[in-house]
Amino acid sequence: MEHFADRLAEAVRRAGNPVCVGFDPRWEMLPNQFHNHSDASFTIKAEAYARFCNEVSDVVAPLVPIVKVQAAFFEELGPVGMDAIGRVIAHAQQRGLLVILDGKRNDIGSTAEAYARGYLGRESAWRADALTVSPYLGDDSLAPFVDIASERGSGLFVLVKTSNPGGRMLQDLECNGRTLYACVAEHVEMLASKSAGACGYGCVGAVVGATYPEQLVELRRSMPHTWFLVPGFGSQGGTAADVAVAFDSKGLGAIVNNSRGIIFAHQRREFAQQFGASRWQDAVDAATREMIVQLVNAASS
Amino acid sequence: MEHFADRLAEAVRRAGNPVCVGFDPRWEMLPNQFHNHSDASFTIKAEAYARFCNEVSDVVAPLVPIVKVQAAFFEELGPVGMDAIGRVIAHAQQRGLLVILDGKRNDIGSTAEAYARGYLGRESAWRADALTVSPYLGDDSLAPFVDIASERGSGLFVLVKTSNPGGRMLQDLECNGRTLYACVAEHVEMLASKSAGACGYGCVGAVVGATYPEQLVELRRSMPHTWFLVPGFGSQGGTAADVAVAFDSKGLGAIVNNSRGIIFAHQRREFAQQFGASRWQDAVDAATREMIVQLVNAASS
Repeated sequence: MEHFADRLAEAVRRAGNPVCVGFDPRWEMLPNQFHNHSDASFTIKAEAYARFCNEVSDVVAPLVPIVKVQAAFFEELGPVGMDAIGRVIAHAQQRGLLVILDGKRNDIGSTAEAYARGYLGRESAWRADALTVSPYLGDDSLAPFVDIASERGSGLFVLVKTSNPGGRMLQDLECNGRTLYACVAEHVEMLASKSAGACGYGCVGAVVGATYPEQLVELRRSMPHTWFLVPGFGSQGGTAADVAVAFDSKGLGAIVNNSRGIIFAHQRREFAQQFGASRWQDAVDAATREMIVQLVNAASS
Repeated sequence: MEHFADRLAEAVRRAGNPVCVGFDPRWEMLPNQFHNHSDASFTIKAEAYARFCNEVSDVVAPLVPIVKVQAAFFEELGPVGMDAIGRVIAHAQQRGLLVILDGKRNDIGSTAEAYARGYLGRESAWRADALTVSPYLGDDSLAPFVDIASERGSGLFVLVKTSNPGGRMLQDLECNGRTLYACVAEHVEMLASKSAGACGYGCVGAVVGATYPEQLVELRRSMPHTWFLVPGFGSQGGTAADVAVAFDSKGLGAIVNNSRGIIFAHQRREFAQQFGASRWQDAVDAATREMIVQLVNAASS
């Protein structure tokens, strides 16, 4: 089973960019043709989410290395939504994309193991390539995830410094002379360095928001074996210049996520005029290409 | 819609005890009659989990106020497992039990809202009475959960001081002269006091492990409006004396969870001889009654 970090490095090299497209299917934002039922059931919504995300995969698969599926919007629809997650993951992988499931799971000991067994790798029910996990429960809650990810060639992204304003409440607290997120970062880097693949990065990565560029610089320096999953680009305010610091000299070490700005690009003023909702796939294509150019330019400047 | 804390207080008064039975259905620990397939599919396992948990509900509903369903073991089985969660919740509620879904979910802003809308209350897909949530993402990640829980007469239990040894790694860090868990506790108590029902407790509770009795004393004092969900009793080492401090003078303010020690009581030496696997329900009954007596005695001593 090939190492997750090596698979990710290879996918980024092949695509020539580190863009991660986020699948956050919000019902009221779908193009009209997906919600022509005014009082849609969970089943109708789940079908629409799966069809929409699968079409997004079709558009972005030739362009980017990886996508991220936001579990919450599917979970809201109950078991039919969970079933749609599995189909969206499978379809994206068939198109050659790696898939992160953004579930921010965690629990203690053998319960954490159940989450890891359930979500990670081909033996699992959901078959994600990687899963986001929360660190509040501490080292013994992360260990089962790391063991199973290592065994299965899968990856993890541990929340370190999240992109939301409220993330500061705990993450920026001073603990023995440094911030809480720095303590989490140190532990994650240790796990990453212990699990490093041929590319030099471990199977354990970190979530570090684009909205905190100074911290991104600091964490890039202190976490040389850790892939970053960088949310907060676009709608949340992070720019290409902000995230340029997240990469190593080979352009590896980070993937930058954009959800709404790409999948709902047909609603952005600059694309709405050009394409309209009937050509929403063209808007997705244009927005993806725009983000790729921005990141590649920022990296070389 | 009646306030969650008042419903919980009423359920505890009616049962005369604060026992929460934890549904953590591990395949290899189920009584033999539930796993007579050596190579069971997810569907067979999910059916077995639902039948087993529903039979546990039948046994414990006349005895205790509330049960807690551990999402991870069901999620491990994919969408059929998620479907089983819904049926287990519905069956327990039909028997008169309140149900906490232990999913330790969280995310930012509108994504957190999707989790809350999906899990909490009768309008939701899963219809849980309460959900466990993780605090690492900060105040703006908790707010949507609180709003929706308040609207729907539902409850939340935020991780504050977890029962596992590794929980200390972050939770016990000193931040500006106090521990991280004390910072989380202060915020949770603020949310609880703002959302207090007639019984004096809020719809936002806290997870505080039975394995840290000193911290339980400290937090009981500093969180007068906050219901505690106390895991770690029994198999993890927490005793009735340890948790006696978690209650107010009326015997309210805490529910004490026991999972394996009750649902798999037929495997405990003292019950295995008496009942054996064929009478596993009698072992569940006996273990529940034993825990009730222990807690009631400890409270009055």
